[in-house]
Amino acid sequence: MLIVQKFGGSSVADARRIKAVAGIIAETYRNDNSVVVVLSAQGDTTDDLIEKAAEINPNPSKREMDMLLATGEQQSIALCAMALESMGIPAVSMTGWQAGIQTTSAYGNSRIRSIKTERVLAELDRKRVVLVAGFQGTTTFFDITTLGRGGSDTTAVALAAAMHADLCQIYTDVEGVFTADPRAVPTAHKLDEITYDEMLELASMGAKVLHNRSVEMARKYSVKLEVLSSFTRKPGTIVKEKVKMEETKISGIAKDSDIARVALVGLEDTPGVAFKIFSLMAKNGVNVDIILQSIGRENSKDISFTVAKGDLATAEAALMEARETIGFNKLDVSSTLCKVSIVGAGMINSSGVASQMFEALYESSVNIHMISTSEIKVSVLIDDVNSDIAMKAIHRKFFGE
Amino acid sequence: MLIVQKFGGSSVADARRIKAVAGIIAETYRNDNSVVVVLSAQGDTTDDLIEKAAEINPNPSKREMDMLLATGEQQSIALCAMALESMGIPAVSMTGWQAGIQTTSAYGNSRIRSIKTERVLAELDRKRVVLVAGFQGTTTFFDITTLGRGGSDTTAVALAAAMHADLCQIYTDVEGVFTADPRAVPTAHKLDEITYDEMLELASMGAKVLHNRSVEMARKYSVKLEVLSSFTRKPGTIVKEKVKMEETKISGIAKDSDIARVALVGLEDTPGVAFKIFSLMAKNGVNVDIILQSIGRENSKDISFTVAKGDLATAEAALMEARETIGFNKLDVSSTLCKVSIVGAGMINSSGVASQMFEALYESSVNIHMISTSEIKVSVLIDDVNSDIAMKAIHRKFFGE
Repeated sequence: MLIVQKFGGSSVADARRIKAVAGIIAETYRNDNSVVVVLSAQGDTTDDLIEKAAEINPNPSKREMDMLLATGEQQSIALCAMALESMGIPAVSMTGWQAGIQTTSAYGNSRIRSIKTERVLAELDRKRVVLVAGFQGTTTFFDITTLGRGGSDTTAVALAAAMHADLCQIYTDVEGVFTADPRAVPTAHKLDEITYDEMLELASMGAKVLHNRSVEMARKYSVKLEVLSSFTRKPGTIVKEKVKMEETKISGIAKDSDIARVALVGLEDTPGVAFKIFSLMAKNGVNVDIILQSIGRENSKDISFTVAKGDLATAEAALMEARETIGFNKLDVSSTLCKVSIVGAGMINSSGVASQMFEALYESSVNIHMISTSEIKVSVLIDDVNSDIAMKAIHRKFFGE
Repeated sequence: MLIVQKFGGSSVADARRIKAVAGIIAETYRNDNSVVVVLSAQGDTTDDLIEKAAEINPNPSKREMDMLLATGEQQSIALCAMALESMGIPAVSMTGWQAGIQTTSAYGNSRIRSIKTERVLAELDRKRVVLVAGFQGTTTFFDITTLGRGGSDTTAVALAAAMHADLCQIYTDVEGVFTADPRAVPTAHKLDEITYDEMLELASMGAKVLHNRSVEMARKYSVKLEVLSSFTRKPGTIVKEKVKMEETKISGIAKDSDIARVALVGLEDTPGVAFKIFSLMAKNGVNVDIILQSIGRENSKDISFTVAKGDLATAEAALMEARETIGFNKLDVSSTLCKVSIVGAGMINSSGVASQMFEALYESSVNIHMISTSEIKVSVLIDDVNSDIAMKAIHRKFFGE
């Protein structure tokens, strides 16, 4: 089999961890697989480099920032190759440009354009483990770029897609995708399988296992993913197109606390009000998540919506400034809320899933502030203090004790 | 003018130093020069990386070591480019491969084969300062290599040669080349000019200002060098083909304490004895410096020679093992010696220089153990405890108080 393995920053944080990772790679190699490894920078390396730059120039050009940051992953691959060598495993490290990863020239947040896999394939033919620096590539003019958030996951999936790998393993510090956060719900269990769509919904709702960008790319090119832990040696969660339908209708419960609610009370009930509000938010770079509109009294209506906590002040200021244009009686904000969501491809064929969730919340006396649904998820906004009770109650309802 | 400026590790050790270096570069640029800058890794970065590697693999492959070490210079150029940007100076950083530096594939100690200067020249045409990572290049197969000792100096001189630069400035932590080490001889003064040959002799005799490799390359391609300090803003020492003849016959005094003497007493006075000894040394990788042969008594002779202190144990063991083959009565070693040398192109035409040096030593009652001479230098081996007295006495003799 041709396997791409990606290890994140905490997995290669120090010499001991690098040796442990090399052990995993060595075992995969000895089981007669061709192995391509993608590594992130060690632990806090990237943050340390950003701090170093800030001391010199608070607003450096993105090209030079990429030149600086790309060194972190280069150090990881060299050190890991040395660890493999000491175990008698032939290995060769490659920077993004050596591995043929061509990107757009959007420094700091570039996209992979194409991968010239000749060199990587030639090294695999020579029975070497190939270690590729994640998160980086070059423009057509040979300038070094970085891929932004979730960049190393993207490198791994893109390499797996370009080489038609049999499997792309994303090693992280959790054992896979869980039905809920085990810290909040002790009875949560690991899923064996999950679909790309479910994974995307879970990721965008606060489950920080995989970055959406890499899941989207995996779906597009049908790359079979496995999320698993580099700290324990257990099978993880497979992410693929279709999974065998399980008995339960949902695959997981997620919580997102980075949420604030804005409520505009007493808006005039005329066309164009919603447009005015949300074009204003877009102009100010505020991303809006759930939107709820309710009829008020006497020709008026209320509109509530949620934003990330960091955007709340911007949203509030923009709305107050435009108060006359929009026309509302009262602006009400709250940042003591959280969003709890259930996700599952099985949900589409079962109308009762949402009501089961609401029932669980009712039985635990948790008040629901807002509701939002899609084909494969149901999200509710509740008080943050109730999140643990709510998660446990929902989990019990769908997965039992 | 087209000027290449090289700054060493101590010159770019921290944010404050990088800003100071950027100030020097900015001034050169504003004086209407095209500026190419070569940087070393910051302060202890290289040593820290070597230590990190040793934790993982005490004997890593040189290819991976180069992959690791090359990141140090890459960080320096990115940070310095940011410092220039913050001063409003357009700048662009380039790794060795981006700057077109092609080397042999002798990892860890490669030689520059050729430099494709197109990209560097194009960036200079765009009125940018070009910052090139020193100490590194790539093989024809695009693997990263490093140039070994004095590598960044070599990068600077090679770039200056390839681009026919008007001047190559080597910034360091001393103000130039001195008539003697100012710490040993307080009256030592800086030379305005020195020839390549004199510089080579001084460098190989312990004056650690410039690495021989870069001086040799500068001589070969007639690159005008200037050695100067990045900490003070004063003219340094110009190194070139010919200098105006000064009144004094010598240009400098140097001391080398990394020296040990091996004496073989009572060798048979037959042909081939010297060959046996020094081919044995060569086979064991021991570099021999001064060799002295004297007639002993009754058909026997003695041979003494000097080696680096680190090679003494190897030399001793090899000789003792070959005692029967070589045939000697006694092996005598000493490592409490040092070598003091005077250098000067003017010496060739003046037979009295050596005797003036011996006179100075006699007047200060310093005993001479060995003497070695070349066209432009005289070296003596004396007890290390006498080195300060000797340096001062010689300096007084040639340069006055």
